[in-house]
Amino acid sequence: MRDVAVIGTGLTAFGKFPSATLKTLAAEAITHALEDADVAVPDVQAVFAANAIGGLITGQEMVRGQVVLRGLGFDGISIVNVENACAGGATALHLAWLAVASGQYDLVLAYGVEKMTHPDKRTIAKAIATALDVDEPVNADAKSPFMESYAERVRGYMADTGTTEDDLARVAIKAQRNGAQNPHAQYGSKELEVQDVLESTMVAAPLRLLMCSPISDGAGALVLASHDALQRLGSLVPVWIKASVVRSGSQAPPHGIARAARDAYAMAGIGPSDLDVVELHDANAASEIMRYEALGLAPEGAGHSLVRDGVTELAGALPVNPSGGLLARGHPVGATGCAQVVELVTQLRGRAADRQVPDATVALAENGGGHVKGDIASDAVHVLTR
Amino acid sequence: MRDVAVIGTGLTAFGKFPSATLKTLAAEAITHALEDADVAVPDVQAVFAANAIGGLITGQEMVRGQVVLRGLGFDGISIVNVENACAGGATALHLAWLAVASGQYDLVLAYGVEKMTHPDKRTIAKAIATALDVDEPVNADAKSPFMESYAERVRGYMADTGTTEDDLARVAIKAQRNGAQNPHAQYGSKELEVQDVLESTMVAAPLRLLMCSPISDGAGALVLASHDALQRLGSLVPVWIKASVVRSGSQAPPHGIARAARDAYAMAGIGPSDLDVVELHDANAASEIMRYEALGLAPEGAGHSLVRDGVTELAGALPVNPSGGLLARGHPVGATGCAQVVELVTQLRGRAADRQVPDATVALAENGGGHVKGDIASDAVHVLTR
Repeated sequence: MRDVAVIGTGLTAFGKFPSATLKTLAAEAITHALEDADVAVPDVQAVFAANAIGGLITGQEMVRGQVVLRGLGFDGISIVNVENACAGGATALHLAWLAVASGQYDLVLAYGVEKMTHPDKRTIAKAIATALDVDEPVNADAKSPFMESYAERVRGYMADTGTTEDDLARVAIKAQRNGAQNPHAQYGSKELEVQDVLESTMVAAPLRLLMCSPISDGAGALVLASHDALQRLGSLVPVWIKASVVRSGSQAPPHGIARAARDAYAMAGIGPSDLDVVELHDANAASEIMRYEALGLAPEGAGHSLVRDGVTELAGALPVNPSGGLLARGHPVGATGCAQVVELVTQLRGRAADRQVPDATVALAENGGGHVKGDIASDAVHVLTR
Repeated sequence: MRDVAVIGTGLTAFGKFPSATLKTLAAEAITHALEDADVAVPDVQAVFAANAIGGLITGQEMVRGQVVLRGLGFDGISIVNVENACAGGATALHLAWLAVASGQYDLVLAYGVEKMTHPDKRTIAKAIATALDVDEPVNADAKSPFMESYAERVRGYMADTGTTEDDLARVAIKAQRNGAQNPHAQYGSKELEVQDVLESTMVAAPLRLLMCSPISDGAGALVLASHDALQRLGSLVPVWIKASVVRSGSQAPPHGIARAARDAYAMAGIGPSDLDVVELHDANAASEIMRYEALGLAPEGAGHSLVRDGVTELAGALPVNPSGGLLARGHPVGATGCAQVVELVTQLRGRAADRQVPDATVALAENGGGHVKGDIASDAVHVLTR
């Protein structure tokens, strides 16, 4: 397996853009990523394209990548469409990493794009709920059948661990505060207080609107290169992928996220204490706290202590989701995994401006998607270093 | 890059099975493939799952592989969903090959599954037409908007090369004759004559019903192993993957199929004259003749000569589509690429019974999908040897 570097990143603003399409969003992110890497379309040998719900939202069920890429002049190369629910973006990155690490290709693009806004809100909710087994019953009257699928677990977790609604609110406040310093973020506020979060609309008890990731349109793109290509291109400031792992959920421990993290730490030869900055999949505020434990950042049952002690604040010992995370940056589902890595590469390059984590050297991204049989459908963990 | 072998294959019967589901079809093919390889579910380290139109046909837009695989006991491993229109099956195989060749995994499963039958024929036609750019207009009243997308090109090709409707009919007759000897085939007849084909319903002139691949349900699965795993398992009769290439179409020659073939021949270190048996993507009868040229089996413009001279008949010098091909075995779109390789592995192992190609040693599979900007959206070529 060869060393693989990220040499360029591109990201659209995330938000509700009714007139944007899969094509316009992907084109913007890809163009920025190529410019950032200082490479041209013909330099790219293979593309891994992630999208989750474009079939139901836009009607483009097949060849979603090809219709975007051929329009941009990509011609005669390998194009593969990938889907892994909300973990699709990181799965595309994983395959791109594999394609370069294997020796098969030297310069590869991974991108994720999602168009979620749609005139009919029920179509959006129905599309998102296909990250569950559609043969199993869901509460079709729920505001969000997918958040419903989280809520019962969250209630059990809170009862078991003493995690409070205030803890969840503090996660939401951190996300909004970080989002306010990220020009690509959908939301951001430096003013939010616990009471504001606890008074926002209930989505699926105990999860309130400000504790849930929003509906978003957006795209992220990453250019990957081998060591050989890097030397040929003379690229500056590469960021290295030290581990790339995709795992489905598991009935037996370690469960999905913890399993992916365990295998990624082993591949990278590091442990949680080596991390300087983390982007994790805060699909809701409780997800973030539960993931502190799954990723080994806190002992089991003690995730809330990181919130209470401010450890994961931007100024804390281990900043988590400096981008604002899914809650504030937004969550265009197939794009999120790429957006997380865009943020971490920006941090590792020291280009994160007001939200820069000082001396960030080792970073971890965790991107999860879907639920099947009581655990996550797919989880991807990447470890990056400069 | 390490050597990679196919050590097990599984295939359902192809046909119209209204009560079958993605789950039942995939389960049958996967179970057979694991049995054939003499491995168990926990031996499999990663799965690449192909499906094309399940989102629109069944509603399961996301995590299509996970809902199948978790039900079969696959737990905590890497699962990736792949889509490349009708080339999805071979694309899943390509990624599985990459995963083993890279050194990342030793035992990997690739499968393709498609459920195409649906109570509403317009839903089927609409789903298939998403292998085109849905932003571009199609003739919604056409019997098959997708076959319409072939027809104009076929008319031009016939005018340029002197290929006749009789030639197309002969391809259809060969397919039916081979299909009659394949127990998994959807159709088969030893009795068909040119006139029968030319009197079948017109779908998109000059393509008639017997010249077009049918609507099919089905699944195919392949177990891949590294040399190390092979020695550990003591598996018999491995078939080696000598080349695995996926290419999108191209505005400049060589176009998609020819480009994929050129790169696959180079990777395998062989040429067309080394082939003993071929499975190619006869989505319609003219596609087969045009592919003879793109794959270098006949000079440009002379594809029809192979039909007229009987070269590609089962008893000919280079049998093509001994399985019956898409026309007779059937074409459950995301499954076809796997089914082609199942047939070739069966041939190379000498287990093809009445349709066995004598002494088959070197085989090629070509699987194409979709149309974008006047060329194929994606084409995959694999070269196999025993």
